[in-house]
Amino acid sequence: MITAEIIAVGTEILLGQIDNTHARHLSLDLAAMGVAVYFHTAVGDNRERLMNTVTLALKRSQVIIVTGGLGPTDDDLTRSAVADACGLPLVFSQEAFDAYVAPYFTRLGRVPTDSNRQQAMRIGSAVFIPNARGTAPGQHVEWKGRHIFLLPGPPLEMQPMYRESVRSVLLSLGGGDAIVSRMIRLYGIGESEAHQRVEDILRGQSNPTIAPLASEGEMALRITARAASEQAAREMIAPVESALLERLGQYVYGFDDDSLAQTVLKALRARRARVTCAESCTGGLLTSLLVDIPGSSDCLHGSVVAYDDDVKERLLCVPPEILATHGAVSGEAAGEMAIGVRRLMAADYGVSVTGIAGPSGGTPDKPVGLVYLAVASERGVVVKKRVFSGDRTQIRIRSAKAALHLLLQQVKHS
Amino acid sequence: MITAEIIAVGTEILLGQIDNTHARHLSLDLAAMGVAVYFHTAVGDNRERLMNTVTLALKRSQVIIVTGGLGPTDDDLTRSAVADACGLPLVFSQEAFDAYVAPYFTRLGRVPTDSNRQQAMRIGSAVFIPNARGTAPGQHVEWKGRHIFLLPGPPLEMQPMYRESVRSVLLSLGGGDAIVSRMIRLYGIGESEAHQRVEDILRGQSNPTIAPLASEGEMALRITARAASEQAAREMIAPVESALLERLGQYVYGFDDDSLAQTVLKALRARRARVTCAESCTGGLLTSLLVDIPGSSDCLHGSVVAYDDDVKERLLCVPPEILATHGAVSGEAAGEMAIGVRRLMAADYGVSVTGIAGPSGGTPDKPVGLVYLAVASERGVVVKKRVFSGDRTQIRIRSAKAALHLLLQQVKHS
Repeated sequence: MITAEIIAVGTEILLGQIDNTHARHLSLDLAAMGVAVYFHTAVGDNRERLMNTVTLALKRSQVIIVTGGLGPTDDDLTRSAVADACGLPLVFSQEAFDAYVAPYFTRLGRVPTDSNRQQAMRIGSAVFIPNARGTAPGQHVEWKGRHIFLLPGPPLEMQPMYRESVRSVLLSLGGGDAIVSRMIRLYGIGESEAHQRVEDILRGQSNPTIAPLASEGEMALRITARAASEQAAREMIAPVESALLERLGQYVYGFDDDSLAQTVLKALRARRARVTCAESCTGGLLTSLLVDIPGSSDCLHGSVVAYDDDVKERLLCVPPEILATHGAVSGEAAGEMAIGVRRLMAADYGVSVTGIAGPSGGTPDKPVGLVYLAVASERGVVVKKRVFSGDRTQIRIRSAKAALHLLLQQVKHS
Repeated sequence: MITAEIIAVGTEILLGQIDNTHARHLSLDLAAMGVAVYFHTAVGDNRERLMNTVTLALKRSQVIIVTGGLGPTDDDLTRSAVADACGLPLVFSQEAFDAYVAPYFTRLGRVPTDSNRQQAMRIGSAVFIPNARGTAPGQHVEWKGRHIFLLPGPPLEMQPMYRESVRSVLLSLGGGDAIVSRMIRLYGIGESEAHQRVEDILRGQSNPTIAPLASEGEMALRITARAASEQAAREMIAPVESALLERLGQYVYGFDDDSLAQTVLKALRARRARVTCAESCTGGLLTSLLVDIPGSSDCLHGSVVAYDDDVKERLLCVPPEILATHGAVSGEAAGEMAIGVRRLMAADYGVSVTGIAGPSGGTPDKPVGLVYLAVASERGVVVKKRVFSGDRTQIRIRSAKAALHLLLQQVKHS
């Protein structure tokens, strides 16, 4: 089995200013591939400590992933620290500059500065890794049987670079074993309850393994099998997947890379149906989750953020007496908002969210976290009440996901 | 200055199943106290690797905080690994058991099991640290001038134990140094260009230090000073901050925890002005960034997501001939959208975004990443053209931030 460790570079991590999210992100995937991660380290922008950390890693791990410190400034020391730790030269490559650094600036219509030349300094005979999303190309250094990957710090650059260029190299090192993962995505059940329901299936499973993964308002179960071939691994997964689906099927909304938004859009597209949203506390987040999916324009022509009562009345035609009697955070208001936006946008489905995201604005009757969701369609309107915990951002995300899930149920049963 | 490192113990961290939140939580507090944290490490429930990690830490840090691995099972190896690393005996203490383990069970009306005796194994002459919230007492080991703190893994046990019992010990060790950081937040300038403009200021700075931090579409400079007191550290920061502001002032939108959305809302609130957004490619993201700030309802009553031309025409009153002649992604359309939504929502400022977020839909004339932004106010309309790189998500985030920045400029100069 391949052993790996992950080194995150950046004083801001050691000062507690940002979370070291890379370590977790990479570890999840490495675990799924059957790579054994034995250490996570975070180290500051300090040449000596960084070099010592890499030197130690070279002694104990076959694969070393270093994130951060690839920028153009003097604080960006990862390239030189790795070169020093390996005793390899660090040389400017015009070729690499032209191929991996300059094009990013060309696309932006900007000119690289002198300091950007640093980003084309090659460690020994390292292979550069393209970065379509930033100025810092990655590097893959092979040294004495070790594989060192230098990846940029910003998550939106690091994650696609890992997925597109590093993952396949790691798979090719894998000793021929195929590792296949299958994600089962669930909504409406918590991690501990899901665990309890399938405890007997989980117990004693070592190949395939089953790992529960919780994220904001939803969860997933990842089944990972190792076998001589991909086909064999898939065949090992199938019965475990069936067993889990039998217990948890009612909560399953998708598989693998599916997201709630994507699943909803797929269901809408299959029915040539359009949706529109009337958002109060989510304030555009629900629509944004849908628009983030490429091709969403087929199924979504527009939405209304109706944060104030005035907008709810004027644009969505919510009767003023409903707002006066029940308040804007009520099942009645949610229903009228969904009906109103559906009519305004001439859509098949109108979805609404109205709630109290906090931190202030809660009352004993209507506490922070109280949210009403509604879906209007030709079959009428369905309203749902939920109470979410968490801070403002979490309540907004959970509300938006709850709305997507309610919509999914309505579309699927149409 | 005291040097410290934090070791998190638990295979679940290395598998990516949970975040290592302790490292950040502790680092924030240690930095504020003037303790220099040089390393974070996460290591699994493996005796040898854990012992090696502690041995290395003893060589390089004065204070070592180890979290996790204090439970009652065979997987809980922290006590024995620390004892081995220090060459100290590990002996059951009936006194410690009665004082620190048994009372928790008594309170719950339960009886400790045999394995809970492990939790009263004392490392050398370590001082036990009480844990009112769980079965695992902490330990404070003093060894050859090093201070090793063993704290339980669950955050709700670790955090109060640290606060109530560890902090005061660390303060008593303290050379009294305080570390203070100041963030300068910039928009509209890249990391390398900012670096170039202040290179002479950065060069040779070791206290305070200046670190550039890039994030999606914006950047920050962090000045960090160490001094005998917080006041002294602030006084060291002031002249550096002035020097940086002199060079980069035009790009500075805020300080410390400010965000673009927060800064915009503050400026709007100061003028009792309201904003509304007409979003095409951002699809609700711009409004959502504003609504995520508590109290935003004062300045934002509603927005329109106008993804389809039909919505732009009907709701925002964009003249059809503008869409026919210039297209929906044009400065003309952006201007009309901003004017239209401002009127529809009776707001002081109307902000619009229209662009091509990709991955498809680009043409040679109008490539993916092309975005038009506009702000309409009583003084007329300002339109801006930008070309962003990145994937769909990045283009949408960068567009939303560009719109916030354009709005900020207009509001500030009103």
